Amino acid sequence: MDLFEKIASNRGPLGSHSHYAHGYFTFPKLEGEIKPRMIFRGKEVLTWSLNNYLGLANHPEVRQADIDGATEFGMALPMGARIMSGNSNLHEQLENELAEFVMKPDCLLLNFGYQGVVSIIDALVGRHDVIVYDAESHACIIDGVRLHQGKRFVYTHNDMESLEKQLQRATRLTAETGGGILVITEGVFGMSGNMGDLKGVLAMKEKYEFRLFVDDAHGFGTMGQTGAGTGEEQGVQDGIDLYFSTFAKSMASIGAFVAGPESVIEYLRYNMRSQIFAKSLPMPLVVGALKRLELLRTQPELKDNLWTIVRALQSGLREKGFNLGTTKSPVTPVFLNGEIPDATQITFDLRENHGIFCSIVVYPVVPKGVIMLRLIPTAVHTLEDVRETITAFEAVAEKLDKGLYSKNTVSV
Amino acid sequence: MDLFEKIASNRGPLGSHSHYAHGYFTFPKLEGEIKPRMIFRGKEVLTWSLNNYLGLANHPEVRQADIDGATEFGMALPMGARIMSGNSNLHEQLENELAEFVMKPDCLLLNFGYQGVVSIIDALVGRHDVIVYDAESHACIIDGVRLHQGKRFVYTHNDMESLEKQLQRATRLTAETGGGILVITEGVFGMSGNMGDLKGVLAMKEKYEFRLFVDDAHGFGTMGQTGAGTGEEQGVQDGIDLYFSTFAKSMASIGAFVAGPESVIEYLRYNMRSQIFAKSLPMPLVVGALKRLELLRTQPELKDNLWTIVRALQSGLREKGFNLGTTKSPVTPVFLNGEIPDATQITFDLRENHGIFCSIVVYPVVPKGVIMLRLIPTAVHTLEDVRETITAFEAVAEKLDKGLYSKNTVSV
Repeated sequence: MDLFEKIASNRGPLGSHSHYAHGYFTFPKLEGEIKPRMIFRGKEVLTWSLNNYLGLANHPEVRQADIDGATEFGMALPMGARIMSGNSNLHEQLENELAEFVMKPDCLLLNFGYQGVVSIIDALVGRHDVIVYDAESHACIIDGVRLHQGKRFVYTHNDMESLEKQLQRATRLTAETGGGILVITEGVFGMSGNMGDLKGVLAMKEKYEFRLFVDDAHGFGTMGQTGAGTGEEQGVQDGIDLYFSTFAKSMASIGAFVAGPESVIEYLRYNMRSQIFAKSLPMPLVVGALKRLELLRTQPELKDNLWTIVRALQSGLREKGFNLGTTKSPVTPVFLNGEIPDATQITFDLRENHGIFCSIVVYPVVPKGVIMLRLIPTAVHTLEDVRETITAFEAVAEKLDKGLYSKNTVSV
Repeated sequence: MDLFEKIASNRGPLGSHSHYAHGYFTFPKLEGEIKPRMIFRGKEVLTWSLNNYLGLANHPEVRQADIDGATEFGMALPMGARIMSGNSNLHEQLENELAEFVMKPDCLLLNFGYQGVVSIIDALVGRHDVIVYDAESHACIIDGVRLHQGKRFVYTHNDMESLEKQLQRATRLTAETGGGILVITEGVFGMSGNMGDLKGVLAMKEKYEFRLFVDDAHGFGTMGQTGAGTGEEQGVQDGIDLYFSTFAKSMASIGAFVAGPESVIEYLRYNMRSQIFAKSLPMPLVVGALKRLELLRTQPELKDNLWTIVRALQSGLREKGFNLGTTKSPVTPVFLNGEIPDATQITFDLRENHGIFCSIVVYPVVPKGVIMLRLIPTAVHTLEDVRETITAFEAVAEKLDKGLYSKNTVSV
């Protein structure tokens, strides 16, 4: 049949809502600078939908560094892949500073986080190797695993018994194939806010031979005493064989890095397809990342502020009876049971009547029948913002309890 | 076995040269602004290793737009995926202008070209569909094809007989599975400079039912009367069902777009994993792309200049007996038969004694036994640059003929 006819009749799980959701629930436009109060459809809203954990996006020194980088270099430089014509002293300096900060011998800068993870996994394993990965891993990990030609075993999210079973299978299999085992999990899971049980995973090294790759997108800058991430938080940074973070969250930019032993980073430098065959991270983003990393290192009050807001928001919501699941991080999911019409009513009420903007997450990002409103606190929110939000959530919950929301999906 | 031990003993095809190549043949640092004369290891070199076809990277209006975008918005904005919190009027404006420019009904902006192509392919096909693709397709196409769960048939590069055979196989197979057929090729192949035979491919539509996806990374801005790309050049832009280009070449930036029918673009908007689950293109890059597109549209002299340089360079080199293969585009490969030691000697001689910097391309990007020196002319090179380069290549060729290069790999 015609491929496009098929596509026209299958909008996909998210696309099937686009007729009423587009521009409001999906693809909304938040205008103004990145801060708690932004403009949505002409009205000021209190925003909890940005990944700007440390508030660096709009920090005056960051804004100045972004201008300086663009002024000195322009966005075009360098004009090639790192390996061909896209290398610079500043790229290498950023790699050195990142390696030192996350306490690893070496580091490789990546042009984008998503394709970085995909290509790291792709480069590390061959058909004789086995991947063992957490069931709730981010899409970029799943796509990397999908490229793998050998076996992959998934373990139940953070379930060490399940992991051990899969490690036993993988160990039996690699004894035959002569391959190795790569375990993949996340530092902080961006939807549930759970920490990956890195300590539990690493305890398995006493019995099984494997290497551990951790995607710490949400943990870098937010977790651990110095902000070096979830490994530091759990006292097991040394045990993480390859440590990855994007710059898209705490670092308030794009790009990413992976850190680990020199020989493995050197291998990745010469074997990651998305880096060899695509352009290097632009210079202003490198300059900007150096400034962001400096602030992350030298202004611990940013992380302290973040956690003040996190604690106030999470304990406040829990006191009012909201189900935040099992988060152990700044990620603050509010789980509601219900169908999509309920979710749209609540989100609409929050935005229009309470001036609170948060993201609504539905299937396939969360299971069917579950609605998640996700709040991402930042260092630049205030305790007054928290109080206002909890009051609004309380009002909404009361209305929901009383069945005052209609059963129709909001059309906007 | 231990995964990292295996890696330590396998550097990969490019990594196996790193001990002598790193920092010189691989990961070189070109310093200064993006223009023909840049600094390599402290000395000025005439550079042919940048993808800056139209010279926009260092155009004063582009440099100013990059500063303005960074000043107004900072590099952090927007702080989320397009579907969640990363949409803006400027993103939509750029989509509309791109759609109009490439003469398609709709367009979707992408956060990075490589992962964009991978996810487009992934989103378009399911296990019952068949992909038929050109054998010399770029790595990002190959990675997208690798994610496909159904059958994929490769046809000999630009060989319409081979394509027809594969279309026959695909047609038989999809008659059974009920799936559709996606044909993938490139507008301009970035290594050989060949144009994809789009006209030939589209002629097959008279006999076979398929949809055509074209990656025109090197053709956008350089080919066709208005610069709308290889489809325009061949008079078949209408027949291209999905048209893709990165911003990494003529547009002198990062990011990308895909253009096509509204229903398919809408489907991609809601179903591309690398876009739903990763951050939106930063605002300064959107602002910068709007300016670049404006210049590309309104300053046809940029493309004219480019082609003046291309013609002078390619005819000059051919007159001196150099094998440029079958290029039909600005991409100017100089093919030499030989092993890697010869290539390193020549490249070293060109850089150190003639002040000419071009990229050296070896296996696995080109076949074993082939060395490719790749020259990328730009609108801002001069005819004097061309003369200087041809003279240098002549001297080098003479030396090669006389066996005056030693048989040792240059160690730098």
